[in-house]
Amino acid sequence: MKPGDRVLCLVSGFFSSRFKDMVLRAKGVPKVVERLDGRGFMGKEVEKLVKRDNFKAIAIAHVETSTGVASYIDEIGEVALKHGVKLLVDAVASLGAMDVRVDKWGITICGSCSQKGIGAPPGCTLIAVNKQFVEELEKRDHDVPTFYGDLKMWLNVVRDPENYHSTQPTSLVYAVDEALNMIFEEGLENRFKRHEVIAEAIRAAIRASGLRIFAKKGFEANTVTTVHKPDNLDSVKLRSEIECLGVVIARGSGPFRYTTFRIGHMGWITPSDTLALVSSLQLTLRRMGCNPKRDMVKAALEVLASSTLR
Amino acid sequence: MKPGDRVLCLVSGFFSSRFKDMVLRAKGVPKVVERLDGRGFMGKEVEKLVKRDNFKAIAIAHVETSTGVASYIDEIGEVALKHGVKLLVDAVASLGAMDVRVDKWGITICGSCSQKGIGAPPGCTLIAVNKQFVEELEKRDHDVPTFYGDLKMWLNVVRDPENYHSTQPTSLVYAVDEALNMIFEEGLENRFKRHEVIAEAIRAAIRASGLRIFAKKGFEANTVTTVHKPDNLDSVKLRSEIECLGVVIARGSGPFRYTTFRIGHMGWITPSDTLALVSSLQLTLRRMGCNPKRDMVKAALEVLASSTLR
Repeated sequence: MKPGDRVLCLVSGFFSSRFKDMVLRAKGVPKVVERLDGRGFMGKEVEKLVKRDNFKAIAIAHVETSTGVASYIDEIGEVALKHGVKLLVDAVASLGAMDVRVDKWGITICGSCSQKGIGAPPGCTLIAVNKQFVEELEKRDHDVPTFYGDLKMWLNVVRDPENYHSTQPTSLVYAVDEALNMIFEEGLENRFKRHEVIAEAIRAAIRASGLRIFAKKGFEANTVTTVHKPDNLDSVKLRSEIECLGVVIARGSGPFRYTTFRIGHMGWITPSDTLALVSSLQLTLRRMGCNPKRDMVKAALEVLASSTLR
Repeated sequence: MKPGDRVLCLVSGFFSSRFKDMVLRAKGVPKVVERLDGRGFMGKEVEKLVKRDNFKAIAIAHVETSTGVASYIDEIGEVALKHGVKLLVDAVASLGAMDVRVDKWGITICGSCSQKGIGAPPGCTLIAVNKQFVEELEKRDHDVPTFYGDLKMWLNVVRDPENYHSTQPTSLVYAVDEALNMIFEEGLENRFKRHEVIAEAIRAAIRASGLRIFAKKGFEANTVTTVHKPDNLDSVKLRSEIECLGVVIARGSGPFRYTTFRIGHMGWITPSDTLALVSSLQLTLRRMGCNPKRDMVKAALEVLASSTLR
């Protein structure tokens, strides 16, 4: 990105709200469209925004980790390709658990991490860029402000690992390599399906409890579920009580820090993990006097039983 | 650093030569003083340079990993304090193995890593800043170009780990924590002494072999020794032959890639590791027809024997 470039920043929660700050630091001009009502972004509306302005790039999170909201990157990629706009996708909370197609979807730069859908420890940034962008990088005649984050310098290492740019977190690179082996052993389609079924089971359990899911229908991520917290429920206590049962859930994030809690369900989660989670949550809610409306475990079990997931 | 700030970049090898690029990317004005003859920098000469120009900061590597050359940061720190210039120290190849005193030496920002003197796996950046700089950071009213490298944003996390800036490489943070426990068990003074004796033993062995050490007397790092390669010695073969004996040595770096090789001796290296290294090097040099002048193992043993190191 060059100073003055206009970037369409599509915001569906705390993490995508950071795009604006990053664009400003790079002396770009952000145009922020924020939507915090549980809906993600779709192709048609993004096309309208793109037609109205002269954007160099669109920045979007595939799954917004803070709200559990997913956007339709496939549709938005079509729009980006059609209008010649670069597409920058944060796939932090989707890669390795939900389908992400860099080339087919017209993604210019796709960034992710080692610790979520990939299921290795945190500490590695994974970046994919498309061929056209590699060509542009090679021709680039100005330096970007950051030395270690300069993708042009990384090209030399990618092409020949004998070249050096900076020391790699070797132990984590081995961990990511092994996680990728395990992912391909499971099979990508199986893996996406597993995440889909488990996410649906958890959502069924939340619906059975009477609590409300943050993400609106059609925008639910299969990796994380954000739940609206009822006013009478102490979420700090909820988190510590369920932790006593061996289950960790996360607090809300950003503007929803005090009004939601989050359930992560990505990576190596199994049906039995899912049932452990759902039953622990049901028990904890009961103990805290927040009685679930219907049986949460039964609701989750029904989803799991109707699938072929083992 | 603000655009237009003048920075004195003191270069004693490949890594410190990167300061110029970094200053330029931050729109600063670098003044480079390069010395590649095996000598590091001392206080008096730096004072002359500082008096002549109006520098905002001095950037220097304590130990230049590529050449094994150390500089006198204590003296240079005095100069920096006296003249009110910020001192930025790359302590990558010294922290945890050689004495580094951020406050006492007048260092403004000291950067290091997890994998060298500290002896944990690579992947963590360790940064210390002095109190005055923290106050300046707090008052800073402009943003730096990098989001994740913005020290001002990290202050919030340092003060309260409940705050979030980005996901940490958790497994490595535990590793660094344990390495620090081990370092304090050994005792800092013991640890510095161990590195000093072992480095001296290795240097004695190199001198006995007839090969020449890159660093001039008084500037030898106790963490890495760079050795001039004789023209008739194939260093690729040297490295692969010694690796067969279970010892890894490194190729030269930057402008000395093909004319030197490097021996790293930091972290958890023991006297027996040292003897394994020296005897393997002696054997390999002999096998390659590059007969050592005197007995290298004997030379190293004499140094080790005359110390109280166990």
